[in-house]
Amino acid sequence: MQLIKPLDAAWLYVDTRATPMQVGCLAIFSLPARAGAPFLRRQVEAFRAARHFASPFNLRLASPRLRFLLPAWEIETQIDLDYHFRHSALPAPGGERELGVLISRLHSNAMDFSRPLWECHLIEGLENRRFALYIKMHHSLVDGIGGMRMLQRMLSPDPATQDLLPPWSVGAGLRHREVEPDPSEPAQPIRDLLQGVRGQLRSIPAVTRAFGELAREAVQHQQKDWALPFAGPRSVLNGVVSGQRRFATQHYSLERVRRVARAGKVSVNDVFMEICAASMRRYLLEIGQLPAAPLTAGVPVSVRPADDQSAGNAISFIIASLNTHIADPLERLAAIHDSAQLAKRHLQQLAKTDINNYTTLFMAPYMAQLLSGLGGHTRPMFNVTLSNVPGPDRQLYFNGAPLEQMYPISLLSHGQALNITAVSYAGQFNVGFTGCRDALPSMQKLSVYAGEALEELERLLLGQAEAA
Amino acid sequence: MQLIKPLDAAWLYVDTRATPMQVGCLAIFSLPARAGAPFLRRQVEAFRAARHFASPFNLRLASPRLRFLLPAWEIETQIDLDYHFRHSALPAPGGERELGVLISRLHSNAMDFSRPLWECHLIEGLENRRFALYIKMHHSLVDGIGGMRMLQRMLSPDPATQDLLPPWSVGAGLRHREVEPDPSEPAQPIRDLLQGVRGQLRSIPAVTRAFGELAREAVQHQQKDWALPFAGPRSVLNGVVSGQRRFATQHYSLERVRRVARAGKVSVNDVFMEICAASMRRYLLEIGQLPAAPLTAGVPVSVRPADDQSAGNAISFIIASLNTHIADPLERLAAIHDSAQLAKRHLQQLAKTDINNYTTLFMAPYMAQLLSGLGGHTRPMFNVTLSNVPGPDRQLYFNGAPLEQMYPISLLSHGQALNITAVSYAGQFNVGFTGCRDALPSMQKLSVYAGEALEELERLLLGQAEAA
Repeated sequence: MQLIKPLDAAWLYVDTRATPMQVGCLAIFSLPARAGAPFLRRQVEAFRAARHFASPFNLRLASPRLRFLLPAWEIETQIDLDYHFRHSALPAPGGERELGVLISRLHSNAMDFSRPLWECHLIEGLENRRFALYIKMHHSLVDGIGGMRMLQRMLSPDPATQDLLPPWSVGAGLRHREVEPDPSEPAQPIRDLLQGVRGQLRSIPAVTRAFGELAREAVQHQQKDWALPFAGPRSVLNGVVSGQRRFATQHYSLERVRRVARAGKVSVNDVFMEICAASMRRYLLEIGQLPAAPLTAGVPVSVRPADDQSAGNAISFIIASLNTHIADPLERLAAIHDSAQLAKRHLQQLAKTDINNYTTLFMAPYMAQLLSGLGGHTRPMFNVTLSNVPGPDRQLYFNGAPLEQMYPISLLSHGQALNITAVSYAGQFNVGFTGCRDALPSMQKLSVYAGEALEELERLLLGQAEAA
Repeated sequence: MQLIKPLDAAWLYVDTRATPMQVGCLAIFSLPARAGAPFLRRQVEAFRAARHFASPFNLRLASPRLRFLLPAWEIETQIDLDYHFRHSALPAPGGERELGVLISRLHSNAMDFSRPLWECHLIEGLENRRFALYIKMHHSLVDGIGGMRMLQRMLSPDPATQDLLPPWSVGAGLRHREVEPDPSEPAQPIRDLLQGVRGQLRSIPAVTRAFGELAREAVQHQQKDWALPFAGPRSVLNGVVSGQRRFATQHYSLERVRRVARAGKVSVNDVFMEICAASMRRYLLEIGQLPAAPLTAGVPVSVRPADDQSAGNAISFIIASLNTHIADPLERLAAIHDSAQLAKRHLQQLAKTDINNYTTLFMAPYMAQLLSGLGGHTRPMFNVTLSNVPGPDRQLYFNGAPLEQMYPISLLSHGQALNITAVSYAGQFNVGFTGCRDALPSMQKLSVYAGEALEELERLLLGQAEAA
C-alpha cells in the first residue's frame, strides 16, 4: 500500500457523479495495407491474452470508501480484464460523427472505484478502413502529458514491428514502478500512512496562505495584459456542470499553424489560443452569451524535468487573457501574445519551491470546491482551460497499423464547463474539445468554428484564398 | 409536480453506485424479408424525429438532490432526445456473446437523475440479419410487467402495419396520464406534497408492525415446505454487490416446458423454478458454495387488476423453497411444487388490504437497508428472486420486422446478487439472468446449465433422448 500524493489524490476528492475526474486519449489508426477484418480479430485476441499489468494499470484504491481519509494505492493481482478491455463498434455510416457520439458516452460513464481506474476500448467500424483505440484513466493516475507518453510507448516508428503489447502491459514507465513492493524490506503501511496524512494536513495552511498572496497580487499588479486569477468575467462556461460530456475534434496540418505563427511573429501556442478565442467568441455571440469583459484562459505548463518518463501529475498554470472583446482577429492575436508572454515571464522568475507553491495554488480551486461546494457559483479563477501538449513528431505504428491522429479528452469541474486540448503529432495539430452537454448546447460547433478561424488567419496574414 | 407513491419512491432511496435501480427489456428482431441496411437507417431517422414524449418518458425528478425528502415527478418539456435514444453497434462476429457483453455494460451504467430516467438503444450488427432494441428505465417509473406491456404497445400483430412509433411516443397507457396537469384546475403543489409526506410517514409504523407479525408467524408456522422469510441459508447470492452486472439468456419453446409440466403434474412456473434450482445447485457445487440448507426464492406475484393498463408497480411476493439440498430432479420438482402451493394459498387467503400490507412488508427489506445499511450483511429474507412474467402470445412486428425474442433485465440489491426472470412470448419461454459480476464469477454458466436442466427433466419425465 502506498499513499497517493496529495496533488494526485485531489482528483479523487472532487470526483462526483456530475464531475467524473477521468481523462482519455483517442487514437485513430488505419488498417495496414492488405490487412482485412482478421487483423482486428487478431488484435482483440492478443489484447485478451495480455495478462501482464504494468503500473499504473495494476493499481487499485486500497479502500474505495475511505479514499477521502486515506487515499492509497494497492497492487491488484486479480484483474478482471474483460471489464477493463472492451471491444466496441460504431453504427453505420461509421464517420467522425458516430465516433464522437460514442466517445462522448464512454467518457461520461463513471468508473468503478473498486477496480483499477482505467478502461481500454478497441473500436471497429470506422469508415475508410480505420479503427480507433480509446483509453480512459482516472486523473489521479495520469495527466494528459503522461497519457500521451504512455500511448507513445506502446507504438513503434517501424511499421514492420509486430507483437506490440497493449497499453496495460507496457505501462507508464519508471516512477510508478516505485509503488511495487520491495521484497527485501518489510512493508510498514501504518507508518507510511501516518506520514502521508501529516503531509496532507501540513499542506492546508500552505493553500490558505497562497490564496492570501494571490489576493494581494490581484490588488498590486494592475498591469495591462496581465490576466489575473479571478479577473475573468462570469460566463456560461463557468456554471455548475452536469455529468454528461460532449466531445468534438478538429485537426490541422502543423505546418499551416506554424506558417501563420511565423507570419504573425507569435508562437504556435499563441495561434492555438487565438483559434480558440475566435471560436468561443463566435459561439457565445450566437447564443447571446458573450461577456463584455475578455475571457481568460488557464494554460497548463509542464514543470516536469525533461528526463522524467513517469506519468504522474506535474503541471502548473499560467493565466492569459483571450481578449474576446476584440473583434479583429489580428489585433486579438497580438493582444493574446502579449498577455501570455507576461504570464510566462512571471512563472519563470519563480524559484523551484515557488513553482511548487504556485502549483498548489492552482489546485486550490478544487480544494476550495471540495470544502465549500462553491464551484460553479462564484467568479471563476479563469474561464476556460486551454492545453497544448507536444506529442511525438514521427509517424508511429501499432503492429503495422499507422497511427493517423490522436486526441486528448479532458475532464471538467463545476465552474469549468469547457476544455480545449491540442496535441501535435507527426506534422499534425489535433484539437479535442470536451464540453458539458447541458451547459454548452451543441458545443461541437466550436470545432467547426475553430477550423474556420485558422482559415481566416491565413487569409489575413498570408493572403491565401480558401485553405483546405 | 406530483409526489411519487412511497412504493415507487423506495427504488430511488436505494439507488446507489453499487445498486443502480434500473430495469431493462431486450427485444431481438429480424429484418423484414427483402429489407437491407436502409431499413435500419430509416428507423433511426424516424426515431430521431419522434419528438412526442408520452408518460412516463416525459417525467423528470422535480428535485434530483432532494429526491429522498420530496420524491416528485415533474413534466420535462425540453428533452434532449440524442441523450436518451442511442444508435449502437456490435463488434464482429455480432453473436449472442457480443450482445450479452454490450447489454451487461449498458445495464451497468448509472442514469442521470437530472433527466427523464430512461434510455433506448437501437443495436445493429447482430448476425443473421437481426437487430435489437434495449430499453432501460428506472424501476420507480415501471416494473417488469409494465415494461413488457409498454413494449407490446409499440408493436403490431400485423406485419403490414407501418409508421409505428418509438416507445417514448407510445408511452405506458392510462394511469400515468394522471400526472399531466389538468388545465381546468389550478395546481396545489404544496398541499399535494404535504399530503404525500404525511402518507409516507404513516407507512413507517405499518412496516414496523408487519415485521412483528412476520416474526410471530415464523415461530408459529413450523410447517414442512412452508418457506418462511429469513429461513434461507446465507450464500454467495446474498452478499454485498458491486455496480457491474452480467446478463445472460436462455430460451426454450414454451411447448417443451408445458409438456414437462403436464407429465410432472405441476405448473409451468414450478418447472421454471426447478430449472433455476437445478442450474443454481450445479453452479454453486462447482464453485464449492452450495449451502447445506435449501435455497429459498422470492417470487413476485402481480396484484394488479387485469384491466389496469398502467406501468406502475403493483407486485407482491411469495417465498418458496427451491429444495436445492435434493439431488434428484423429480423429487426436487415435487418438493418445489408443494412449497409454492402452500405459499400461494397463504397469499390468496388474505383480504385486499392485507395484500397491500403484505406488499409493504416485502418492500421492507429495502427500507430497512436504507435505514441501516445492513443489506448483504444479514441473513437474507430469501436467497434469489425468480419472476415469471406472462408476455404476449401472438407473433408481433415492428414496422414489418418480426419480434424474435424478448428478455427482461433486472435489478440487484445488496443481499440479492442474482435475479432470474422469464417471459413467455408467442410460443417461447425466454429467460434472462441478471447477476453481479463480482459476487458470481462467470455467472453466464447458469444459463447453459438451465438449458441442460430442461433436457434432463424431458429425459426423466418423457423418456426422450437428447432434446434439441
